[in-house]
Amino acid sequence: MAVMFERVALLGLGLIASSMALGMRRSGLAGSITGHARSAETRDVAMELGLVDAVFDSAAEAVVDADLVVFCVPVGVMGDLAAEVAPNLKPGALVTDVGSVKNAVVQAIGPHLPDNVHFIPGHPLAGTEHSGPRSGFASLFKNRWCLLTPTGETDPAALQKLTDLWLALGAKVDTMDAEHHDLVLAVTSHAPHLIAYTMVGVADDLKRVTESEVINYSAAGFRDFTRIAASDPTMWRDVFLNNKEATIEILGRFTEELFDLQRAIRRGDGQQLFDYFTRTRAIRRGIIEAGQDTDAPDFGREHE
Amino acid sequence: MAVMFERVALLGLGLIASSMALGMRRSGLAGSITGHARSAETRDVAMELGLVDAVFDSAAEAVVDADLVVFCVPVGVMGDLAAEVAPNLKPGALVTDVGSVKNAVVQAIGPHLPDNVHFIPGHPLAGTEHSGPRSGFASLFKNRWCLLTPTGETDPAALQKLTDLWLALGAKVDTMDAEHHDLVLAVTSHAPHLIAYTMVGVADDLKRVTESEVINYSAAGFRDFTRIAASDPTMWRDVFLNNKEATIEILGRFTEELFDLQRAIRRGDGQQLFDYFTRTRAIRRGIIEAGQDTDAPDFGREHE
Repeated sequence: MAVMFERVALLGLGLIASSMALGMRRSGLAGSITGHARSAETRDVAMELGLVDAVFDSAAEAVVDADLVVFCVPVGVMGDLAAEVAPNLKPGALVTDVGSVKNAVVQAIGPHLPDNVHFIPGHPLAGTEHSGPRSGFASLFKNRWCLLTPTGETDPAALQKLTDLWLALGAKVDTMDAEHHDLVLAVTSHAPHLIAYTMVGVADDLKRVTESEVINYSAAGFRDFTRIAASDPTMWRDVFLNNKEATIEILGRFTEELFDLQRAIRRGDGQQLFDYFTRTRAIRRGIIEAGQDTDAPDFGREHE
Repeated sequence: MAVMFERVALLGLGLIASSMALGMRRSGLAGSITGHARSAETRDVAMELGLVDAVFDSAAEAVVDADLVVFCVPVGVMGDLAAEVAPNLKPGALVTDVGSVKNAVVQAIGPHLPDNVHFIPGHPLAGTEHSGPRSGFASLFKNRWCLLTPTGETDPAALQKLTDLWLALGAKVDTMDAEHHDLVLAVTSHAPHLIAYTMVGVADDLKRVTESEVINYSAAGFRDFTRIAASDPTMWRDVFLNNKEATIEILGRFTEELFDLQRAIRRGDGQQLFDYFTRTRAIRRGIIEAGQDTDAPDFGREHE
């Protein structure tokens, strides 16, 4: 593929940035890639793995001459970082991010940027429970959605260019406004994560069930929760602090439904439980048909 | 391997029974296998796949001359089935089950059985979200735990024989009393399942988020919930109706913790959230170290 950006700057070098770097390398999308990370260890690993051509402890230096600047840091530090790099941004540069919330990102980054750059927030819906520069892989975005949240003022050519980048990385692209994004993600990601964290915390707290029992006998359900609940603590703290209203609203709805099912159990209302479980099963089929998961009957273990 | 049971009767021919049949076939553990299922279609499929040597619409006929009888039906029908087969059980036969709750199974099956058979309840902690006779595979139990709940009166030789069977099927075996089993499973399986069912139901109910959005953007968290929430509705209805007290107790504990985290979000207490998420991450590491999941960083998708 042809070079899409002569110079790309990745601010933050964790799972998403390292996967973007590997994906851009594989398809020759970037002339050169510079990186910034606060941690010296992360910077060393990024160079060692060849993720970037140059690495800087100063974000302001990393963005010099960059045609594309990607904020890949936790949402909570994006505002300060934007203020720091703004004076050095190349006129006409495309600026984006990969944060899991969008309204707060727009408010954190937007006011710092000069008028002569194009800022289009983005969110690739891809991840694992691993973090750091060693956790990336080029196919992370393959067949996953990347949501962009342009506004009425967004330059169509810049939007097309960012769309093309994500398509070239293997993703599918959709656009929506930032507020709607935050509601959709509260449902499909943020509330589920908080619930998984909570359930794992409860199991850990119980004294009558030993830790080894929880760990050994996790096959049937709990294991998937622990996978979710192993995600990066800093990133998730910032997600919840920055998508407060939508998350709390969905959680309220969730506890309402949970209490209803709990009452059905207490009363022994098998029909209500059966009907509910039948309905949720159909949703799973929709996800498999939409290509967002496999139908493999073995939870990922190998067949013999 | 040598034949362990001359004749095995599988009552119910779903995921667990079909996986047991395939596993016993592979290792030559059973002289012959007879099966029973209520549905004619299931019986036909079981014969077509060669899971069983003979199949019966009457459970009472299926158990004749069997040295091992395994109840592989939803917990709610075990009592009636036990009453039906009891007169035909071979003296000295080993009777077990694979139900997800144990106290209720002991109370449902126990009273019907004659004194001259050995009844030892069991629960293999293995499963997928698929059900039916076509969903089984021989390695389902490999490296998974099977929990047996003998009592003080259990014959040690019979317990050893059942233990050896599960070991031969690839499982690891542990024993505990039925009540403790039900509490452990409420934590590691039953409560997580109800929570997953609820979250999926909430997403389905919301009108402002379209169904296609829920389905397409499920990659980040919600997808794992839908997998759990796609499990067999009948089986799970019976689990909740038959492990009522422990499940409700764990759910109470869960909502208490959830409200606490929700309040931290509302207040913007980032430190509380960060500390909680750091603690739950450690549990995930324990599960991987215990061999109950893989550390693959790609959610089961293939690397390139």
